[in-house]
Amino acid sequence: MRLTAFSDYSLRTLICLAVRGQSTIADISRVYGISEAHLTKVIHQLGLAGDIETTRGRGGGIRLARPAAAINVGAVVRRTEDLALVTCMEGGACLIAPACRLQTALKEALEAFLAVLDRYTIADLTAAPALVRLLETA
Amino acid sequence: MRLTAFSDYSLRTLICLAVRGQSTIADISRVYGISEAHLTKVIHQLGLAGDIETTRGRGGGIRLARPAAAINVGAVVRRTEDLALVTCMEGGACLIAPACRLQTALKEALEAFLAVLDRYTIADLTAAPALVRLLETA
Repeated sequence: MRLTAFSDYSLRTLICLAVRGQSTIADISRVYGISEAHLTKVIHQLGLAGDIETTRGRGGGIRLARPAAAINVGAVVRRTEDLALVTCMEGGACLIAPACRLQTALKEALEAFLAVLDRYTIADLTAAPALVRLLETA
Repeated sequence: MRLTAFSDYSLRTLICLAVRGQSTIADISRVYGISEAHLTKVIHQLGLAGDIETTRGRGGGIRLARPAAAINVGAVVRRTEDLALVTCMEGGACLIAPACRLQTALKEALEAFLAVLDRYTIADLTAAPALVRLLETA
């Protein structure tokens, strides 16, 4: 069970911008050692979702479009993840699907997972002084 | 976020055996429309874990090695899944790993996910008469 790189990069981009303020794709790519190509898609989606904004021209870059305390971690994951834990959840054929309690149990477990993430904002994730030091000096 | 086919097949095999009693790989493969090759590996691991046993000779097959009520869903998933939600959880390099609260939040969410599954046994998943009818007549 694994989050996609897309979710992982989305959350880490938001964390980076929350601490470093305005930044660039090249900068975030360097900080985390992840590809600019992947990051470009992530940035585009975060922009569409209204979490970040791009400022143009000399001295332009990317920054959070709203306070880190207003960006909910659960909301980001719900948006970036395919939450069909097993193929039947996305319509795959299985003989027992019409009466399956495994699917019910997995949905309940998934809701519990997301409910925990709903309790966190990007501001909560960036409150540690040690994290701020790591990102500010990177 | 998705369970591996290995976890999915493990749970569905246990459900099938709980309802149909003794069975065969060919039979379970037919019931769910999944490959015998994949199922063979699943059956092997379920045997090693002590959830199922193989009876040899004429009329032999596979059956649960203990009551369905004694086989915990959370325990099966903990055994069959790689639970490193993001690469840093398995030791991947990330600048902020030493001070990262995202990892903490994800671990807490994962524990909540597993805690729900810990409340279910294979017997709970096979209690529905409609499910029993579907599997008995398959």
